[in-house]
Amino acid sequence: MIYNIFYLVTRMEIVQQQVTLRARPRGFHLITADIEDCLSAIKRWKAGICQVFIQHTSASLTINENADPTVRIDFETYFNKAVPENDPDYRHGYEGPDDMPAHIKSSVMGSSVTIPIRDGRLALGTWQGIYLCEHRNHGGSRRLMVTAWGN
Amino acid sequence: MIYNIFYLVTRMEIVQQQVTLRARPRGFHLITADIEDCLSAIKRWKAGICQVFIQHTSASLTINENADPTVRIDFETYFNKAVPENDPDYRHGYEGPDDMPAHIKSSVMGSSVTIPIRDGRLALGTWQGIYLCEHRNHGGSRRLMVTAWGN
Amino acid sequence: MIYNIFYLVTRMEIVQQQVTLRARPRGFHLITADIEDCLSAIKRWKAGICQVFIQHTSASLTINENADPTVRIDFETYFNKAVPENDPDYRHGYEGPDDMPAHIKSSVMGSSVTIPIRDGRLALGTWQGIYLCEHRNHGGSRRLMVTAWGN
Repeated sequence: MIYNIFYLVTRMEIVQQQVTLRARPRGFHLITADIEDCLSAIKRWKAGICQVFIQHTSASLTINENADPTVRIDFETYFNKAVPENDPDYRHGYEGPDDMPAHIKSSVMGSSVTIPIRDGRLALGTWQGIYLCEHRNHGGSRRLMVTAWGN
Repeated sequence: MIYNIFYLVTRMEIVQQQVTLRARPRGFHLITADIEDCLSAIKRWKAGICQVFIQHTSASLTINENADPTVRIDFETYFNKAVPENDPDYRHGYEGPDDMPAHIKSSVMGSSVTIPIRDGRLALGTWQGIYLCEHRNHGGSRRLMVTAWGN
Repeated sequence: MIYNIFYLVTRMEIVQQQVTLRARPRGFHLITADIEDCLSAIKRWKAGICQVFIQHTSASLTINENADPTVRIDFETYFNKAVPENDPDYRHGYEGPDDMPAHIKSSVMGSSVTIPIRDGRLALGTWQGIYLCEHRNHGGSRRLMVTAWGN
């Protein structure tokens, strides 16, 4: 194990912003740029953390490969097999066959991502991007809360 | 993308409380009110974050639909199929057939949820609630650590 | 529900450190001690939070059972069944049959764990440890960012 540069920061502050994402089709979508665009306040920070939270139960957030779009297609393929629609054992389905699977996928992926901030930028790995996971056929626009703390 | 109200807060503080939840039957249970009850300290905060952490490896936490109880029944149905008991390939099973599946489900769901705080309240979406995911047949009471930071 | 000791801390600070873990074989590995080793700065803190973030998309982090090594073997067994290699529907596979399953497993498990700090230590439950989930056959060394805030 190798330890690298260590930062200590005092006098922490917190910035928080609501963001509304335009409607996206069902599937997995890169939104890293959308998040970075609302983080101008962190540009002068040495160290911190950014949390992105989605205020819905049928869409979710995750971090994964940011380069090859076929990864995001394979995510949709995999999760549609792993969480099938029309299972006769589901009781909840008011809103159609994509309703209950959307809830389950949301909890498997999670409702937030939390990312370190370093030297004024999200400290993502080279190949990491933030995905909006849209699990509904017609999910509409999605509300996020972006909160960052540090200095 | 639309950006809404932006908050900047300095002089952050942190509050932390241990909470013991009474034993619940195996399944998914709404505990939003239990968490809100121990967050009186945040009522005057403009912005912050609350983390809820479960100190166990056979129960977990997630955020999902807070209105229709059949969603929580369908969660139990789905995860029992997705993570079967009595797989002859499992090596770990000291505590019965629900032992190893409980560990796996806990990691799929996760040991914590992290939620923004805004204007003195958890900034959950309209339909979002906090679930205790009890994966054991007889899990007993469960210890949480609730930590909030902001101002 | 029982509420226990409550802590209020002001004047928060943040410490952040990059850590490079040596290469591990495919599977699930306990790294709690590696993380604790780089947290000497928190020894005098009353309350806080530690976040560990992995800067890769084919390895992940989770919290689970820290005592019986067969649990970690069963994790590898389970996730290899749940996320099969060589699915003919995968489009992304430049780096071999373990490539796309590694991405999927990473998002199921997650790229970070977030753990409360109390009285100068990670407030893990008795049986909880931090797992590095190495999903590649030859993943090489892995970079983490360890960030802690509190006082």
